[in-house]
Amino acid sequence: MELQQLDATATAGRSERSKWLLNSPDPPAPWQQLFTSVKNSVLPLPDKTKQPRPNRTLLFLQALFPILKWGKDYKATKFKNDLLAGFTLASLCIPQSIGYANLAKLDPQYGLYTSVVPPLIYAVMGSSREIAIGPVAVVSLLLSAMISKVVDPSADPIAYRRTVFTVTFFAGTFQALFGLFRLGFLVDFLSHAAIVGFMGGAAIVIGLQQLKGLLGITHFTSKTDIISVFGAVVKALHHQWNPLNCVLGCSFLIFILITKFIGQKNKKLFWLPAMAPLLSVVLSTLIVYLTRADNHGIKIVKHFKGGLNPSSLHQLDFGGPNVGAAAKIGLICALIALTEAIAVGRSFASIKGYHLDGNKEMVAMGFMNVVGSLTSCYTATGSFSRTAVNFSAGCETVISNIVMSITVLICLLFLTKLFYYTPLAILASIILSALPGLIDLNEAYNIWKVDKLDFMVCLGAFFGVLFGSVEIGLLVAVVMSFGKIVVSSIKPSIEVVGRIPGTDIFCNTTQYPVAIKLSGVLITRINSGTLCFANASFIRERIMRSVKEESDLEESNKGRLNILVLDMTNVTNIDTSGIHALQELHQKLIARDLELAVVNPRWQVINKMKASKLINKIGVGRIFLSISDAVDASIGLKTNSC
Amino acid sequence: MELQQLDATATAGRSERSKWLLNSPDPPAPWQQLFTSVKNSVLPLPDKTKQPRPNRTLLFLQALFPILKWGKDYKATKFKNDLLAGFTLASLCIPQSIGYANLAKLDPQYGLYTSVVPPLIYAVMGSSREIAIGPVAVVSLLLSAMISKVVDPSADPIAYRRTVFTVTFFAGTFQALFGLFRLGFLVDFLSHAAIVGFMGGAAIVIGLQQLKGLLGITHFTSKTDIISVFGAVVKALHHQWNPLNCVLGCSFLIFILITKFIGQKNKKLFWLPAMAPLLSVVLSTLIVYLTRADNHGIKIVKHFKGGLNPSSLHQLDFGGPNVGAAAKIGLICALIALTEAIAVGRSFASIKGYHLDGNKEMVAMGFMNVVGSLTSCYTATGSFSRTAVNFSAGCETVISNIVMSITVLICLLFLTKLFYYTPLAILASIILSALPGLIDLNEAYNIWKVDKLDFMVCLGAFFGVLFGSVEIGLLVAVVMSFGKIVVSSIKPSIEVVGRIPGTDIFCNTTQYPVAIKLSGVLITRINSGTLCFANASFIRERIMRSVKEESDLEESNKGRLNILVLDMTNVTNIDTSGIHALQELHQKLIARDLELAVVNPRWQVINKMKASKLINKIGVGRIFLSISDAVDASIGLKTNSC
Repeated sequence: MELQQLDATATAGRSERSKWLLNSPDPPAPWQQLFTSVKNSVLPLPDKTKQPRPNRTLLFLQALFPILKWGKDYKATKFKNDLLAGFTLASLCIPQSIGYANLAKLDPQYGLYTSVVPPLIYAVMGSSREIAIGPVAVVSLLLSAMISKVVDPSADPIAYRRTVFTVTFFAGTFQALFGLFRLGFLVDFLSHAAIVGFMGGAAIVIGLQQLKGLLGITHFTSKTDIISVFGAVVKALHHQWNPLNCVLGCSFLIFILITKFIGQKNKKLFWLPAMAPLLSVVLSTLIVYLTRADNHGIKIVKHFKGGLNPSSLHQLDFGGPNVGAAAKIGLICALIALTEAIAVGRSFASIKGYHLDGNKEMVAMGFMNVVGSLTSCYTATGSFSRTAVNFSAGCETVISNIVMSITVLICLLFLTKLFYYTPLAILASIILSALPGLIDLNEAYNIWKVDKLDFMVCLGAFFGVLFGSVEIGLLVAVVMSFGKIVVSSIKPSIEVVGRIPGTDIFCNTTQYPVAIKLSGVLITRINSGTLCFANASFIRERIMRSVKEESDLEESNKGRLNILVLDMTNVTNIDTSGIHALQELHQKLIARDLELAVVNPRWQVINKMKASKLINKIGVGRIFLSISDAVDASIGLKTNSC
Repeated sequence: MELQQLDATATAGRSERSKWLLNSPDPPAPWQQLFTSVKNSVLPLPDKTKQPRPNRTLLFLQALFPILKWGKDYKATKFKNDLLAGFTLASLCIPQSIGYANLAKLDPQYGLYTSVVPPLIYAVMGSSREIAIGPVAVVSLLLSAMISKVVDPSADPIAYRRTVFTVTFFAGTFQALFGLFRLGFLVDFLSHAAIVGFMGGAAIVIGLQQLKGLLGITHFTSKTDIISVFGAVVKALHHQWNPLNCVLGCSFLIFILITKFIGQKNKKLFWLPAMAPLLSVVLSTLIVYLTRADNHGIKIVKHFKGGLNPSSLHQLDFGGPNVGAAAKIGLICALIALTEAIAVGRSFASIKGYHLDGNKEMVAMGFMNVVGSLTSCYTATGSFSRTAVNFSAGCETVISNIVMSITVLICLLFLTKLFYYTPLAILASIILSALPGLIDLNEAYNIWKVDKLDFMVCLGAFFGVLFGSVEIGLLVAVVMSFGKIVVSSIKPSIEVVGRIPGTDIFCNTTQYPVAIKLSGVLITRINSGTLCFANASFIRERIMRSVKEESDLEESNKGRLNILVLDMTNVTNIDTSGIHALQELHQKLIARDLELAVVNPRWQVINKMKASKLINKIGVGRIFLSISDAVDASIGLKTNSC
């Protein structure tokens, strides 16, 4: 009697829970979801503490120009640290900027220009305290590789430069727009693995480009892939190279690398690797000047126009035939530059324990590049290597960027003549010495350990850049990353589920060998997040296959499989093909005289099952909220029918 | 005391369950999974009943030629039904074949050839009993639209025909290979919604093409999109059309449609709509012959070479410049033809309650098209309209196809001269009358009801075909279908979860208003199947946002949020970016002085968490198998710390 009552209560509980499931309100419609989703990503969390109006304006200004906020508390002690960091930064920045300008196929002063204006703009608008703004290797390579295809820099350097400024303007505009519309997530379109692979490949490509300077080759290939470059080098080695360049470049490269090694071993000597490039430039320039080695085949910088950044407003070209290409290149540069800057900024912010708002950073970067494009700068962003130096030098705020910028400006105004005899091989060796930081073998190994498929994406991006081109590498990375999502979400996967002893928890019997299968009942769980045209018939066949196998097994044990419990917890999405597959599954089970019980169809799924009337075919009583409800009901059914 | 003991037991149970989770064996490696997956899809379920060797050969032959199996039990009574069905089929097939050949821009006899050889081959190899093989509208359109871009059929009809045969050969080869390698799932690459939209669009495009015949226009556009066609029609209406064609075509179209309507109302009169086309052809030909209306502007068939299918072995062209294009077109035609045939075959098989093996069907279709391409046939497949007629006519086996084939052959041998005066307008009206069956408004409405996004895919395919071209429509459909998968699997979605009263079941509080939130504990569930670069930082921000909101709420109620329980049940896949996001989430929670408890990370996920050492950072004791374990442990923690 009591047992019966208990049984009745249990049945009542079950059916009530099923009712909750079946009578749940309609889920939000797709456009409503889309609207909420856009609203959530675009609008910031409303601030509930109400501010009086004047304060609001101040807050807005402070949000736009963070310097207004921290500037009030800025003290002399902080400035001392920033000054030191700024000088250290400048000493590294000047030779690197000249080298990167060379990589971008521009005259050396454009690299220095880019280290003057953008850091100043960033200093008043940006919120990272450590980031060092200026030209970087990967963006320089990207610009020269992509623009060279549109305008030949050696045939028409003026048109090439105009295109560079136009691209920079577009890049800045895109960045600012992304930030204003809070599209920070765009930076996520390259997966972590893809960035690691891409950066590694780009570093090697940049290194290969330096062979031109290091070997003193005059005619070099304009292609960037490893095969063309080696071909050009082998060709050049047969006649027109000069061993003096190589000796000079390599000896200073070894010197810089040794100082780097010392700096890594003894953190207090951080200034040694930071100063080494400038020291190398000064020393090698002196050597060349004193020995007049330029007459013996050593290639030198020569042209170097000093003075303040000139305006480049009239050089922007929005009417020419290349404006479409410039916009496309601008978009790619904008994304790559942002990816690098935000990765750099975030990693140092997390060390110091503050949060960096990606969208605000984008606005700051965008403005700095737009202003840069009007003042003869090319695309600037946050540099990995210099930010690390800035951090090690003990910078406190972004004031170190201002110090650096002013130092570079002074150098531009008064010292450019001194660079006339600087050998190109030294610039090459300075760039080469900065590259190992871009090749993150350790992280690649970590990716390999954690996720083999991610490692494939990493390799794809790496080899795409190396053997194809920068764009091919990017394309491979994006396509492989999204291909991986498609493959992993349509992978038709089901698992057989058993009860964990002593609980109502049901788990994969392969993963949890303790889980116990129930006789007469087969419980399967669909392991794909989506049940759609691409995997529905596969999943249906897999389920029927395991039904057959289980049925054979039960029959060999003189039992009989009565019920298939289908756990749909994981299926967050279903389409019409998925509904059809469930319908067919139900019909096939009927043909085999088996019951079907559906467990926990999610909100969207139950809604679509209702809309397609599938629920009436399966039977309202055959839908359960939990596996244990389904199993209990089924066992009840079995004992009643026996 | 007793309570303490109970508590101790509960804690022991929890930690044991956590141990099961943490110590579960390694999941299969990706290549192992891939191998199993390929094996499962490629190899059939092993047959456990062992057969002696001679029987095996017989079984193999029977599998390849199902006619060997059912042929033994074939009886005279069945043949009577098949004979009737075959004649009915032939009477519909002859005018349709001539019309479709016209649509494919081939001479009329090639349509009839295609209704002779492929049905014979299918009859011995195929396993569907109802399917009617021959030329169909969509494939004819596809062939002419795509091949016309490569070879102009009016300028060089012989080269065009050679390309058609080559394409058919490639299509057959691809189909047979798909079947042999058991790649039946390739047919699933067009979602149900995409097929509905594509078929609807193709039907309208085919209808528009018939305006040429119906209006007697001589110069017509070779493009298929609605704007070009209407432009051509408007241009033609100004001078060179003939109203007589239109009157003749429309009156017979009305006649055929009326017979269709009668056939639908009274199922016994199925033969009336099946016979109507042939009757129309005979009547209209007689009218034209008697009145010599061809002298008054009525366009007639004229050229019609009779006789047996000639060999086309030497017309196949594998060395020409178009062989690559032919292979591409062959692949597309192969897939579309298979999609149609298998959809037709399966829907009628399910009415009669037998199963159709997609892979075997593919082999049969492939062989029939390869043989067809050698005997002057173009790509054949199963026709929607004729299969329905075959079914209604009471066919028993595929013998009805043989009867049809022989009838068509007799017609080819002796009766082609009779078609000399057949007006082209009648052929157009016969094709037009078959089109409504391709436009499935009812199903489109069902798709709209069940899944709005699927309906968008359907519309995309429809308008792509209508305003672009057949290929654009297909491309749009495929891209939208896969785009939908990507969007739905990276959609960053989390839900706040509460306990269903009286159970250990935890559900979405919005979907189940009965679910109760616990004070001091926020339980969130990640609703995406994959946590990857594209959604990881979004999801992290969503979680932090709801943590903030919940925290504010608790504080306004004088409480405090202590623990975030993160249910990862739905996350079947994670990549390195996902791992990073979890790591950052953990750090941010620490910064807010909140505990993190992770619930039920799936097999791949826990494995990657182990590999990346994330598990040590979160703490082994903070991973639970179920939400209730996590909640119980957290509450224990809270009361202990209070």
